[in-house]
Amino acid sequence: MGLAFLSRTSMHATLGAGPGDRSAMDGPTRDGGGDPVGRAHADKMGDMDIDLGADVVTLTQQLVDISSVSHEEQEIADAVEAALRGLPHLVVTRRGHTIVARTELGRGERVVIAGHLDTVPLNDNLPSRLEGGVLHGLGSCDMKGGDAVMLKLAADVPEPNRDLTFVFYEAEEVDSVHNGLRKLTESDPHLLEADFAILMEPSNAAVEAGCQGTMRVDVRTTGERCHSARSWRGVNAIHLAGPVLARLNDYVAREPEIDGLIYHEGLNATGIRGGVAGNVIPDECVVEVNFRFAPDRSEADAEAFVRDFFEGYDVTVTDIAAGAMPGLDRPAAKQFLEVVGGEVAPKFGWTDVAQFTKLGIPAVNFGPGDPMFAHKQDEHVPIEHIERCERLLKDWLA
Amino acid sequence: MGLAFLSRTSMHATLGAGPGDRSAMDGPTRDGGGDPVGRAHADKMGDMDIDLGADVVTLTQQLVDISSVSHEEQEIADAVEAALRGLPHLVVTRRGHTIVARTELGRGERVVIAGHLDTVPLNDNLPSRLEGGVLHGLGSCDMKGGDAVMLKLAADVPEPNRDLTFVFYEAEEVDSVHNGLRKLTESDPHLLEADFAILMEPSNAAVEAGCQGTMRVDVRTTGERCHSARSWRGVNAIHLAGPVLARLNDYVAREPEIDGLIYHEGLNATGIRGGVAGNVIPDECVVEVNFRFAPDRSEADAEAFVRDFFEGYDVTVTDIAAGAMPGLDRPAAKQFLEVVGGEVAPKFGWTDVAQFTKLGIPAVNFGPGDPMFAHKQDEHVPIEHIERCERLLKDWLA
Repeated sequence: MGLAFLSRTSMHATLGAGPGDRSAMDGPTRDGGGDPVGRAHADKMGDMDIDLGADVVTLTQQLVDISSVSHEEQEIADAVEAALRGLPHLVVTRRGHTIVARTELGRGERVVIAGHLDTVPLNDNLPSRLEGGVLHGLGSCDMKGGDAVMLKLAADVPEPNRDLTFVFYEAEEVDSVHNGLRKLTESDPHLLEADFAILMEPSNAAVEAGCQGTMRVDVRTTGERCHSARSWRGVNAIHLAGPVLARLNDYVAREPEIDGLIYHEGLNATGIRGGVAGNVIPDECVVEVNFRFAPDRSEADAEAFVRDFFEGYDVTVTDIAAGAMPGLDRPAAKQFLEVVGGEVAPKFGWTDVAQFTKLGIPAVNFGPGDPMFAHKQDEHVPIEHIERCERLLKDWLA
Repeated sequence: MGLAFLSRTSMHATLGAGPGDRSAMDGPTRDGGGDPVGRAHADKMGDMDIDLGADVVTLTQQLVDISSVSHEEQEIADAVEAALRGLPHLVVTRRGHTIVARTELGRGERVVIAGHLDTVPLNDNLPSRLEGGVLHGLGSCDMKGGDAVMLKLAADVPEPNRDLTFVFYEAEEVDSVHNGLRKLTESDPHLLEADFAILMEPSNAAVEAGCQGTMRVDVRTTGERCHSARSWRGVNAIHLAGPVLARLNDYVAREPEIDGLIYHEGLNATGIRGGVAGNVIPDECVVEVNFRFAPDRSEADAEAFVRDFFEGYDVTVTDIAAGAMPGLDRPAAKQFLEVVGGEVAPKFGWTDVAQFTKLGIPAVNFGPGDPMFAHKQDEHVPIEHIERCERLLKDWLA
């Protein structure tokens, strides 16, 4: 989505946060490549090892206990790289804190299996805690359970029936300019060539197809500043935003059916700001709105909808990324579904499956963990999910 | 207002900005008394002199050209103190950057004439510029024109018909805990004893009586956080604030007549904030509301009105200060009005006249400059205003 994103002339000059991001509110972003903060953090934590011989749950726990907040992936990337370089059947490439490991077996088909290594910021939820069949801790759900499954496949299936490309990438949870998978699509697209891709984002260990698009706009009201003791001399921009919120309250979500899956759109204020000083009638108020749109809408359609919805207001698009159609009719997707089985659900959140869609590679989300618990303080993953994903993928690749 | 303010148990723990303030948005406040920033600034500017022999407009210009943003009043206070100490008929006292100068002539009546020395932050509006009978520059209107008039009275009327107490004080434009006049009411109330007080805040060189009260509240809505891709699983607190803004839009201001003056209340959002991240449904939104209330309401009445207005919402009082009744029926006020003449208007903004009201001293606002231009980038004062105030006060005191 990076290229399309950057080429848009309607885009705001300072690019907003990317679709998988924690938003521009997180403050200035830093490049993850060897940044000093990451190193300092790694030094403080001490070197952590991961053991590919351990079972997949233990391995998940090891990964969770290596703190890897976005831009601080140095340590976990080092550990993953070291582990993969110990496997002679894999060709390993590193770009920043993104690691690619490929089999070169000359199979007739190649599959990419991808997962990000970073997490959202710490929220007093490390180290991990295994309790009653559930692993708790930052990143357990989003998405170190999936990363652990990938590492186990890499270690335990040296001769898969399809060639495999594992991608462990950095900076998915922040501004999309830092996204390791997006960077790879630009710097080394040949490393990603494949017939099918599986993104191990949390999806309850079931297949979630396609993904919805996401768009951010600023809806701005403009008033006239004056002293609040003589407020009738000015025009209050925050008061002018009242009808903007009223429209949002009246919004009814569209729920289209696509390839038999029911998507569910959403239009929400995710931020609001206004105010000059406690004694000044404010002349500007900005409502930050996030539109999540079904994959049957193009970016242009989505933008037209939002502009129409807020007709009469100043609307600035700050970020937009189209979704991905389910693509379940593609042969590679069909074969995967036959082996993995279960109900296929629509993916509501934007995920990096859209990166693959842009490369023409059908892709699905399939990973352990309930996405409802992603980014929550009590993030967790049922160990049964991790084990099921490992078992199903091993069955498919054996 | 400081004592009443601090004694309120309903008050938020971290006290909000005071009524004359530029609000809590200005960031941490520092104590003005000999703070290192003030000194560094003074050193950088070099020592500036003021010349009490100059005409009142030139003197205003000299004062404007001594930058004196709140907490950086060292230099201007030094200059004012030095000038006053050169006048043998005055007894000068200094507290921090607040200067008190008193005649001790044993007259039957004593009048306080007060003005603050600080300004709001620089806004590319210094040095001053005299053009077409108007003096432009930061502080020209609020309120160095008034300060210059006070200095001219001090220098040119060594034997006034009433004893005079001049108060040049620090830190009026910031959090009220720093306000030099308020501090003086606590540390040295005997220095303020008087029969009448004139506050030389800008009032178009006419008398503005009393002042309205001011109150700040946070109106808070609470929702439930969730990922914005599945917004129907949460409750959007910003959307919940829509009806709060709708109520503000429906507000009709009360305009009571008090002592023949028409006051004009106002209820306004001066700030709004909400949002966790660009992909999160926010669980909190806070509308910062400023209520300006006529002086016939007590603090308790004002609070009851606001709580009733926002019934059903979480309302936290962050700051409150009662206004001041016009008090035009007091003998000292009547005599002043007879000499000065002109139309008496109500004061809409909260000013330090309320400090005098608390001491039982009738007080009016009377100073050069249109308060509409206070705190504006193009702050300015008609020189005719300055000259008129000087002339009328000299007539009254001669």
